[in-house]
Amino acid sequence: MKIMLTSIQNPKIQWVRSLLTQKKERYQEKVFVCEGVRLAEEAIRQRNPILALFSSSISEHGKAILSSCTCEKLEVDPTLLDRVSDTITSQGLLLVVPFPEFAMPEKLNFCMLLDEIQDPGNFGTILRAAVAFGLQSIFYTPGSVDPYSPKVVRSAMGAHFQIPIQEANAKKIKELSQSTQLFLAEAQNGIPCWEADFQQPITIIIGSEAFGASQTIRQIPHQSLLIPMPGSMESLNAAMSANILLYEAARQRAR
Amino acid sequence: MKIMLTSIQNPKIQWVRSLLTQKKERYQEKVFVCEGVRLAEEAIRQRNPILALFSSSISEHGKAILSSCTCEKLEVDPTLLDRVSDTITSQGLLLVVPFPEFAMPEKLNFCMLLDEIQDPGNFGTILRAAVAFGLQSIFYTPGSVDPYSPKVVRSAMGAHFQIPIQEANAKKIKELSQSTQLFLAEAQNGIPCWEADFQQPITIIIGSEAFGASQTIRQIPHQSLLIPMPGSMESLNAAMSANILLYEAARQRAR
Repeated sequence: MKIMLTSIQNPKIQWVRSLLTQKKERYQEKVFVCEGVRLAEEAIRQRNPILALFSSSISEHGKAILSSCTCEKLEVDPTLLDRVSDTITSQGLLLVVPFPEFAMPEKLNFCMLLDEIQDPGNFGTILRAAVAFGLQSIFYTPGSVDPYSPKVVRSAMGAHFQIPIQEANAKKIKELSQSTQLFLAEAQNGIPCWEADFQQPITIIIGSEAFGASQTIRQIPHQSLLIPMPGSMESLNAAMSANILLYEAARQRAR
Repeated sequence: MKIMLTSIQNPKIQWVRSLLTQKKERYQEKVFVCEGVRLAEEAIRQRNPILALFSSSISEHGKAILSSCTCEKLEVDPTLLDRVSDTITSQGLLLVVPFPEFAMPEKLNFCMLLDEIQDPGNFGTILRAAVAFGLQSIFYTPGSVDPYSPKVVRSAMGAHFQIPIQEANAKKIKELSQSTQLFLAEAQNGIPCWEADFQQPITIIIGSEAFGASQTIRQIPHQSLLIPMPGSMESLNAAMSANILLYEAARQRAR
């Protein structure tokens, strides 16, 4: 007979809770938490292992998807799962999965670097667009939000299982600048993005929402570009800008 | 001496609350509610009248901006304002403003039609991009979220004061199809958007997140287009798609 977890003190519950709330815990174990059937489906489709699943109520569709999973399956009282879950209304399912591993391409050719992007929604949305436009890899600077934090994971809708996401320190960025042309998206200065040559090996850099690119980035040789906007809005947010530049690169490369 | 409003029963409080929560009230009076200093600043900059303002705590910066306002100014107990406000943490300021009025351009040339877009964040984000890329007007079908609902207003970040937003019934859409070429963004079918001729007078149609375009739209002659995506993500959301198509049109028109 199955046991239902009902106490917040239960060690398994404490474990998943700490993975949701503490970056340190995630990186010590190299695992993170996904919520909901859609992400479970994506993990399975991309052959990412699932270490454990906590569920309160799953649809028949969800059960069918998870039936192939041989991992530890724990039933949790619905109120408790809602309490543990990061979303306001838990979707009745939490998965613990290892950080996905990818073989890096031999030659970098189409990358993006997120420089101190703090907003989890923006980070996740960019990951989603990156997969859509066939980016090879996403890099991010140490001052960025943790890509495995629950809000990023939720808004990325499974992108974590499809694209390598790597932290890049100054040394790594220098390497990137040697193998690809760095383009920095600016609000005011630079060439129109459609005049930039995106057919060569490139890394597009998106700066922080509030302050633009950091000093580390500014000191490394790069080309500045902007998205020309004939209208009167000050600028688009980081996710919208990244989305447009990925599209523009894909457009040029489709020729 | 100033009086501070402390009761939820106060008629002025009841008024602003009904404007926040009831579409019918907004349309009877043709007014809506904006939250926060940034939107106040935008309303003033665009010379939109302000009918009343409810504040609990405003920064010195905010006070300076609002000093020119001759409207009714009401001080509200902070807890009460938080309770009335639509945001989780009220920004200490609610404004009541009339629906902005715009002189419509004589000849339509660059428009967008949102067809049953339900997500307020998407609707607002599209409004913001529309202003950035110099769209003349946004139309929306009756099944869409109300553009004056608080969440749309918040995510549009002042776009309401800069672009005409109009409901379009079947008759109006037919008119649009006579004066502009209709392009319908599709997930699977159509020509690549960069092959579409966006230099002629156009209306770009964005369908609902869940179901695509409605039957009303499908029955009116249009061209289908898609955003080619070399990667493996199923599709971008409505706001991201709209954003890219607006950019593509601006790119073609800049030549």
